[in-house]
Amino acid sequence: MLGSKFINLIDLSDYPKIWWEDIVVLAHEIKQNPDNYKSRCRGKLMATLFYEPSTRTQMSFQAAMLRLGGGIIGFDNPATSSVAKGENLKDTTKVVSSYGDIVVMRHPLPGAVKAAALTADCPVVNAGDGGHLHPTQTLTDLLTLYEEKGRLDNLTIGLCGDLKNGRTVHSLLKAMSCYKSNRFVLISTKELELPDYIKQELTLKGVEFKEVFRLEDAISELDVLYMTRIQRERFASEQQYLEQKNVYVLDEEKMKKAKSDLAVLHPLPRVDEIAISVDDDPRAKYFKQANYGMYVRMALILLILEKSLTPAPLMHGEVRNDICCKNPKCITNHESYLPHYFKVNGNKAVCEYCDETTEL
Amino acid sequence: MLGSKFINLIDLSDYPKIWWEDIVVLAHEIKQNPDNYKSRCRGKLMATLFYEPSTRTQMSFQAAMLRLGGGIIGFDNPATSSVAKGENLKDTTKVVSSYGDIVVMRHPLPGAVKAAALTADCPVVNAGDGGHLHPTQTLTDLLTLYEEKGRLDNLTIGLCGDLKNGRTVHSLLKAMSCYKSNRFVLISTKELELPDYIKQELTLKGVEFKEVFRLEDAISELDVLYMTRIQRERFASEQQYLEQKNVYVLDEEKMKKAKSDLAVLHPLPRVDEIAISVDDDPRAKYFKQANYGMYVRMALILLILEKSLTPAPLMHGEVRNDICCKNPKCITNHESYLPHYFKVNGNKAVCEYCDETTEL
Amino acid sequence: MLGSKFINLIDLSDYPKIWWEDIVVLAHEIKQNPDNYKSRCRGKLMATLFYEPSTRTQMSFQAAMLRLGGGIIGFDNPATSSVAKGENLKDTTKVVSSYGDIVVMRHPLPGAVKAAALTADCPVVNAGDGGHLHPTQTLTDLLTLYEEKGRLDNLTIGLCGDLKNGRTVHSLLKAMSCYKSNRFVLISTKELELPDYIKQELTLKGVEFKEVFRLEDAISELDVLYMTRIQRERFASEQQYLEQKNVYVLDEEKMKKAKSDLAVLHPLPRVDEIAISVDDDPRAKYFKQANYGMYVRMALILLILEKSLTPAPLMHGEVRNDICCKNPKCITNHESYLPHYFKVNGNKAVCEYCDETTEL
Repeated sequence: MLGSKFINLIDLSDYPKIWWEDIVVLAHEIKQNPDNYKSRCRGKLMATLFYEPSTRTQMSFQAAMLRLGGGIIGFDNPATSSVAKGENLKDTTKVVSSYGDIVVMRHPLPGAVKAAALTADCPVVNAGDGGHLHPTQTLTDLLTLYEEKGRLDNLTIGLCGDLKNGRTVHSLLKAMSCYKSNRFVLISTKELELPDYIKQELTLKGVEFKEVFRLEDAISELDVLYMTRIQRERFASEQQYLEQKNVYVLDEEKMKKAKSDLAVLHPLPRVDEIAISVDDDPRAKYFKQANYGMYVRMALILLILEKSLTPAPLMHGEVRNDICCKNPKCITNHESYLPHYFKVNGNKAVCEYCDETTEL
Repeated sequence: MLGSKFINLIDLSDYPKIWWEDIVVLAHEIKQNPDNYKSRCRGKLMATLFYEPSTRTQMSFQAAMLRLGGGIIGFDNPATSSVAKGENLKDTTKVVSSYGDIVVMRHPLPGAVKAAALTADCPVVNAGDGGHLHPTQTLTDLLTLYEEKGRLDNLTIGLCGDLKNGRTVHSLLKAMSCYKSNRFVLISTKELELPDYIKQELTLKGVEFKEVFRLEDAISELDVLYMTRIQRERFASEQQYLEQKNVYVLDEEKMKKAKSDLAVLHPLPRVDEIAISVDDDPRAKYFKQANYGMYVRMALILLILEKSLTPAPLMHGEVRNDICCKNPKCITNHESYLPHYFKVNGNKAVCEYCDETTEL
Repeated sequence: MLGSKFINLIDLSDYPKIWWEDIVVLAHEIKQNPDNYKSRCRGKLMATLFYEPSTRTQMSFQAAMLRLGGGIIGFDNPATSSVAKGENLKDTTKVVSSYGDIVVMRHPLPGAVKAAALTADCPVVNAGDGGHLHPTQTLTDLLTLYEEKGRLDNLTIGLCGDLKNGRTVHSLLKAMSCYKSNRFVLISTKELELPDYIKQELTLKGVEFKEVFRLEDAISELDVLYMTRIQRERFASEQQYLEQKNVYVLDEEKMKKAKSDLAVLHPLPRVDEIAISVDDDPRAKYFKQANYGMYVRMALILLILEKSLTPAPLMHGEVRNDICCKNPKCITNHESYLPHYFKVNGNKAVCEYCDETTEL
């Protein structure tokens, strides 16, 4: 096991559920009384290292830090950034983490943020590492449910769209299945249904779920509808795209069948999976959700900088430089100096950076 | 009529003249005693959404907000901004206006900033919408005249350069013709003279103006000379360009014929329409003018955030989705969900976003 | 001679040695008690004008200003910056220096920062002008030696890598040869050895130095080893590159021969001239060095904004517009309005912007 001096946030599941709730409750309190917090991080500095642009996430973190009275430095455009270009991740992180009090990093490669946390001189927060994890989005979703439904349990939650590739959906499922009596309705095409290994996890945990192929057939029983986008190229064929696309578009017609207290969420940006006319429906909560994202990040930054939490270990397994992670996008296959941490169990080695399993 | 909860600044003429003067007078007061204002916007956040780069305008707004003690987030490079790219204007505005307390927007399409203000959750300021409006430039010009001439009336104002296409010139003419006894001398080529509809407006208002084709012939009678650039391609032919270009360049020779208290203004950036040797002439006020732009924006931000003004309505006419604005660049022809607001009079419909008239 | 109202920092040698020490000592004091300084520049604004990207240097300056309580505006990407593009350097500097209280500029052309200081309305700091000067890097190196060796004299300093083209190395040599009993060991290939004119200067000053071709042969006698990169294309041939490249790479093997209190420095970014395994050696000081860079910039900004120093003159020679600097990259060959300042001595004219000598 490898500990850390710092309260990093790489993966939500590194911390117990009670920790998530501390953040959600603090975010709620900040939203009620923002003036009480406007100088709490005075004199502190956040560095936002965005190795791929994500303006919304970056602005949300920046607004959060500024609203706590802190300052921000960083880059958002690797093409024009001499730090991001041609220098290894370790050196950039070492230097920038010595300028700042907290580093927020987004990177196209899974495991990159954990790799950065290994040698950083301040806490590191994961703002998205490729298609792998995006824990502050999940915290945002939890706060939204807490604010809009008043509870995190006893909810029937529909998840609609690309359930196969959707990082956001996987994280939310994982988090919400920790609360009692939540039921899930999985709404997608056959080709884009939830991966088997996640269904197995749900079954093992005793979580109730069902699969439905038409949004229309599911909407009436939902307390929460979490919409995501299906990219055109994800459909099995152009013909299926033309046949099915409207099935997964939320419009006023489908909203008529929904409960009066349904909460519609979406991680944004949307393309056309929610008709714009739905925006005026009071059940549409996705813009509020984006706003909650700022408050949840304020709470997170505050708890980290005021050291109100116990740091989670960074690694639980062992260094096995004889094994190479089979995931070509894994950061260990791009930054050669990184120690290869794996949790080895029989003939399976789970990479501790990207969570992929390599058979030995 | 469609009101607004917020004090937006889309078009200077949405507000009465007395309002402009409040800003100018406050800007003057801030310039005298900047220390009194350095914490007035502490805890407030400005988002600068620049859909086309305009570094000078953006830095001027940012400096203004920081000098009031506030914070800034934003983007300036749509190419690397995931918010600006592929997401509709409404969604970006909704989200960002929930992070900030004031949004400053620049956009290449006429009407885009008003469209954003329709659904924003905070006040919106127009920092230029295509060739349409740029009200803070006009406020800057007013403050410059107030500071450098001591009055806004009784001035003989020369406007030199491309008077056909110059947004800045049109706005200044409109504003200054509201003050008594101002005379205008319009100095340009035949092809680039002021549009007829503006001349008709001036005549209707009883404003005195004359047209002159050579700067040299006009300069001696001027109190103010407002220089703008003529782009090479605006001349009728290459031959005319070669013959005429020097006629519209201000140099030391022409300055000799000018009054000793002439004030030379220019919205900047200049190319070569003012010789660099003129910079050392005390009558050259264009660099001071740029600096006044920061103070006028401080005053504007302050009045908006301290809610010292009455919000102007956003729209005065009616929604007529059966009419399409004939201006291909109008934002309504690019963002399909926007309601089509027109002021309809007989067979003419004036678009309330871009001000173009469509015949019915 | 041309004086300045402002305390600019263009070239370290414009100021006496005692001045450097004031900065180093203040930087040390700030590092010890950062809280005492966190509001010292409240209400002040720094503009960072980066005509070529240098994210690390820019972030270091920004972190410094924010940690003093000040604010930052600026640009870092000339391609998307309307200020940087198509406008002359003078106009951009005039305007931006009227928004800010201090301007930090990086530019690809030698002499550009001094040219900007000629007409700026606030102090200007050189953050690198092409391959010419980078004074805050040298101040960083001085602070690092002060902190890590406890003294600036009586040191045996190895300089390894490309000594012919290395701006950083030349500046450090110049600065450290002002302190008594420093010895230099110059470690490079024959092709990349220190230029003759610098060796002559050292000899004239009575400074002891020797040249060595293998790092291994020199390392054991060093108190300080300053590593720099040799670019592949700098080697005499591909064959020499293959033969020699490892000679100039610092690794654990070579570290075994070094003193126990050696300090290894590097201006960063590194490529592969220091093995990553050396990072864990306590004698590796290059990451601390980067961090010291922030503190030295805090000290510099503070001394400039609190006007605790006497401004140095900008030019010592005369305007000779009849002479053109022979350096094609010199800013005077790119901005035509600049007066040509030279120090003329016999048939030699030294350009006061870029320091190149032109024969008359």
